[in-house]
Amino acid sequence: MRPLARRFRWGRSGYLVAGEELLVPHGPVARLWRLLIGRPLATTHEVHERLSKTQALAILSADALSSVAYGPEEIMKVLILAGPEALSLTWLIAAAITLLLAVLVLSYQQTIQAYPAGGGSYTVASDNLGTLAGLVAAAALLIDYTLTVAVSVAAGIAGLTSAFPAAYSQRLPLMVLAVLLLMLANLRGVRQSGMLFTAPTYAFLAGVLAVIGLGGIQLATGGRPAYVPPVPPPVPTHPLTLFLLLSAFAQGCSALTGVEAISNGVPVFRPPEAQNARRTLVAMGVLLGTMVLGISYLGSTIGVVPDPTERETVLSQIARALFGPTWVYYGLQVATLLILVLAANTSFADFPRLASVLARDGFAPRYFQRRGDRLVFSTGIVVLASLASGLLVLFQGSIDRLIPLYALGVFTAFTLSQAGMVQHWRKHRGRGWPLRAAINGLGAATTGVVVGVIASTKLAHGAWLVVVLVPALVLGMLGIRRHYTALARELAAAPGEQLLPARLPPVVVVPVGRLDRPTLAALSFARSISPEVTAVHVADSREEAAAFRAQWDAFGLDTPLVIIESPYRRLVEPLLAYIDAVDRQDRRRPITVVLPEFVPRHWWEYLLHNLTAWRLKLRLFARPDTIVVDVPYHVGVGFEGAAGGRPARSRRAAGETR
Amino acid sequence: MRPLARRFRWGRSGYLVAGEELLVPHGPVARLWRLLIGRPLATTHEVHERLSKTQALAILSADALSSVAYGPEEIMKVLILAGPEALSLTWLIAAAITLLLAVLVLSYQQTIQAYPAGGGSYTVASDNLGTLAGLVAAAALLIDYTLTVAVSVAAGIAGLTSAFPAAYSQRLPLMVLAVLLLMLANLRGVRQSGMLFTAPTYAFLAGVLAVIGLGGIQLATGGRPAYVPPVPPPVPTHPLTLFLLLSAFAQGCSALTGVEAISNGVPVFRPPEAQNARRTLVAMGVLLGTMVLGISYLGSTIGVVPDPTERETVLSQIARALFGPTWVYYGLQVATLLILVLAANTSFADFPRLASVLARDGFAPRYFQRRGDRLVFSTGIVVLASLASGLLVLFQGSIDRLIPLYALGVFTAFTLSQAGMVQHWRKHRGRGWPLRAAINGLGAATTGVVVGVIASTKLAHGAWLVVVLVPALVLGMLGIRRHYTALARELAAAPGEQLLPARLPPVVVVPVGRLDRPTLAALSFARSISPEVTAVHVADSREEAAAFRAQWDAFGLDTPLVIIESPYRRLVEPLLAYIDAVDRQDRRRPITVVLPEFVPRHWWEYLLHNLTAWRLKLRLFARPDTIVVDVPYHVGVGFEGAAGGRPARSRRAAGETR
Repeated sequence: MRPLARRFRWGRSGYLVAGEELLVPHGPVARLWRLLIGRPLATTHEVHERLSKTQALAILSADALSSVAYGPEEIMKVLILAGPEALSLTWLIAAAITLLLAVLVLSYQQTIQAYPAGGGSYTVASDNLGTLAGLVAAAALLIDYTLTVAVSVAAGIAGLTSAFPAAYSQRLPLMVLAVLLLMLANLRGVRQSGMLFTAPTYAFLAGVLAVIGLGGIQLATGGRPAYVPPVPPPVPTHPLTLFLLLSAFAQGCSALTGVEAISNGVPVFRPPEAQNARRTLVAMGVLLGTMVLGISYLGSTIGVVPDPTERETVLSQIARALFGPTWVYYGLQVATLLILVLAANTSFADFPRLASVLARDGFAPRYFQRRGDRLVFSTGIVVLASLASGLLVLFQGSIDRLIPLYALGVFTAFTLSQAGMVQHWRKHRGRGWPLRAAINGLGAATTGVVVGVIASTKLAHGAWLVVVLVPALVLGMLGIRRHYTALARELAAAPGEQLLPARLPPVVVVPVGRLDRPTLAALSFARSISPEVTAVHVADSREEAAAFRAQWDAFGLDTPLVIIESPYRRLVEPLLAYIDAVDRQDRRRPITVVLPEFVPRHWWEYLLHNLTAWRLKLRLFARPDTIVVDVPYHVGVGFEGAAGGRPARSRRAAGETR
Repeated sequence: MRPLARRFRWGRSGYLVAGEELLVPHGPVARLWRLLIGRPLATTHEVHERLSKTQALAILSADALSSVAYGPEEIMKVLILAGPEALSLTWLIAAAITLLLAVLVLSYQQTIQAYPAGGGSYTVASDNLGTLAGLVAAAALLIDYTLTVAVSVAAGIAGLTSAFPAAYSQRLPLMVLAVLLLMLANLRGVRQSGMLFTAPTYAFLAGVLAVIGLGGIQLATGGRPAYVPPVPPPVPTHPLTLFLLLSAFAQGCSALTGVEAISNGVPVFRPPEAQNARRTLVAMGVLLGTMVLGISYLGSTIGVVPDPTERETVLSQIARALFGPTWVYYGLQVATLLILVLAANTSFADFPRLASVLARDGFAPRYFQRRGDRLVFSTGIVVLASLASGLLVLFQGSIDRLIPLYALGVFTAFTLSQAGMVQHWRKHRGRGWPLRAAINGLGAATTGVVVGVIASTKLAHGAWLVVVLVPALVLGMLGIRRHYTALARELAAAPGEQLLPARLPPVVVVPVGRLDRPTLAALSFARSISPEVTAVHVADSREEAAAFRAQWDAFGLDTPLVIIESPYRRLVEPLLAYIDAVDRQDRRRPITVVLPEFVPRHWWEYLLHNLTAWRLKLRLFARPDTIVVDVPYHVGVGFEGAAGGRPARSRRAAGETR
């Protein structure tokens, strides 16, 4: 086959290989897209990066560490409902959260040990507690990843507009733009190990620790200048009840989202993977705990008042109070934006990966598994970006309104994962398993209680959405799996199975509307595939029927013609009835309908033609035992091989439409 | 053919006839629709109604007569900009408009005589001034018909909410609802001769004439009670310039829309048609002139103040001032609503008819010619309803904002029609032709000046839209005609023309993804139509390629298999490149691509499957010389005639999907 050689090369394996030259973009849109996304990457191009501990801390912990930017603020926003004095309890709530963090770090230490290949909640829960628990964890995580993007981007832009108030009115478009940029970057595929990904985290850490350090010194020495908050403290509207305290705790738990990332990502560490991962987890826990406690204490001590309109964040207020409008302050705000974007970016890796695993297991549509030009799971990336943008628009970019939805999913996944670990130890019974089971049991119990606290305090504030969505998603995933399984059974073929009579020519019907070139082409094709061809014409009136018959005879066509008079001016129904009748005469052979069609030069010219052909095609497609043949006549091109035809344009000229 | 007899009957003409039993609606939506629209009507069912003079006056003049409900008010709304005193000029402007009306009646008398078959502006202008003038008139009329629906419905609902202010806040939904009801009624097809269509006009006439009579008596006897308008007179904002007077005149010209309806509709009169039409036209002119003058005079004399928020119409204010909240008043408001709905209804007859004539002449998409189940031009009806609802929503149902667009189109059509009549007389030169030409010349000149006045005073208030739309529509119509002509030339076939080699079996390519039942069915079909079949599989990796080859061999299929390795994970591009290469080997025969497909039980299950098949189909459809064959495998049904297959459900059970 000589022409093949011009398009393909022969691989060493003996297969034709489709090279990159087939993927040359056509048209300006395709070229722009290629420019944004980059050249396609071959499957063999895939590399697995390994990260050092410092890199891993920056990249895998960005989600968790960045929570400091909004976690303490959310605690204060609840407490202040009971008046400014209640803010003095902030550090107590922060301490409870830090304690919870310690339990989580302890628990996940064990997950790392048990699942050195990466212990995501879906894996751990499925393995140990069964499919249903795994799916609940997966659904909770998918929601959580989406919210991570929305909350992180919203908080990042809030940090930016705190420093540059002029941008405040444009914050929603800025947020959506940030999500779209993240989508593009991830469709292009990003190498995570570069400075680009480690610098923001360390800059943020340095900034926040500097704030805490300077603030601590000033408080200890009494040298702190008086602070005037941008908004006056509001009038108390709620009494300081236990419910309010629990509510503040539940909001603050958003600071712990992302703690599980290190245990999911053990394989990306340099060897010894598990050991490095565990050390990084401890470092992250210590840093996060310090920051949450420090910022909460400072915030409640120096007289910061959280702003309900989110014009200036608490972190920005503290930094501004201590440093004034210096480069340190502006640097911290920019670092806040960057680490939060980085946090959102981790979801852009996690969501598509989880969706692809679910698709592999048959719980999600198959195309989540398909990798795009740049070897990334494009569908998941696009779906995540759409969902997150949708959430931001729906909630008007308000962190306050997004947070109540946030922590519930995370803690549900925590609980299931920890409970799965208890089961894991009971099954495997290694050395000292009762202690290990007890530690994970403590984790499961604690996070389980937190789930209860969040659900009971935040249900009316939006958490009901999660409570509705998780079972809906689980049911959906089960339905998808059932569909795929049933379909595979239905479509499975056995060797030697004969579905259609392979050697009998088909029974062919050609609906003809006018006697023009497309019709002649369709009739010729029909006769080339079978000797049993009937043309059918549906006439609106007796006069038209007679006229068509006369034209048919004048053309001297040797195909039998049946004319149906349609007094109700319908086309599709009489044709289908005729096909039914013909079909009944020979049940063994499927009926084949050859449709004459023409393809106009421009797509919009379709609008000028009867859409009846499309309706007929849809109806035929829905009819069992019916094979549909399109014979498209290209306006201006015709058929190249036409014996008496008129190839108006050369194939070269027509090549553009391909 | 015995089975044919069960579905069709044989007509006397020797053709199969598709009876009404084929059109039994399936499913609840189809049944509800049938209930709303009624049973389909056979083409032979068409009847031509003839109208008596009283009926014709009511039906054909509803549009013109109903303009009294808003015409005088629009004059007053302009004059009051120069202060309440300027309102005393209202009757002067009304007198000028009445004079214009007399000229129009005189002119159209002659059109009736010259075009007894109906002299619409498009016909008269095309006949005498050429295609371009005809198309300009047609475009102006299409816009005018759309505006008639919008303005009449808006004014009708304004009349209703004047009497029942509680409905004011819901006026926009009420308007859209009215348009939808009109659409439904017209899709069903309405007989116009009944009481339903004559009563509202005469009720409205009686009401308005009673108002004028009683008002005249009270003014003459001085027995009129003091009137307090619902809104105080506004502070003057404009000086009383000539421009303002012309502007008021231009707005008032909206009262003359619909005057041409009688001359368009001559054939519906009882014989002697022309004579009856001319008498009706005179009666209409006298009535309309009386009412416009009377209402304008009353409105400016008894102290009515037009309400810019359109809460109470001027006509309602006059009637309420004279009659108080009696049943006469409420009756008039309801009659106003009904006659305006009737006016809108005439556009629902005229717009689709004009569109169908344009389609017949090749200037509009062909489906405007197609008559629906009830013998009406369904497409035109639906398009008109959509456009009118769109206008109402866009302009928030405000008559004030719609009117400036309104009269320009009508008067453009008037001018072209009258100019065409001048040309007509010059060509035919009957008895006394110079006088006749002079009369129509006066009409053309007068209406031409009015076009200038409207354009110059209303351009900034919305008339620019019409000035832009008319040429755009004309260009569009010319483009459509050019497309149809070129296409017909391109597709025309000559007897004996041979486009495809009819006796050579086609070259067949079968893309195969998996070895399942749909694939086996497609392969069987391919072999039944040609001995030259090649199966092509695109593999993502070398391992997958080897596995597929092994499975293929295990199935013992005798079709040659080509495997293409696609390192960039693309499917469509390598397939198309392969088809290109195969096509080059035999240029005479088109390439035939047989696609294995499966049809799931429910349409939404499509969402769970690769959309790649659709993309491939689109690309193949765009490729010249390519015939596409769909072999759909119906899940749960399979193929009935399958030799070794498994017909899971009987054809009866599957019948529902047909």
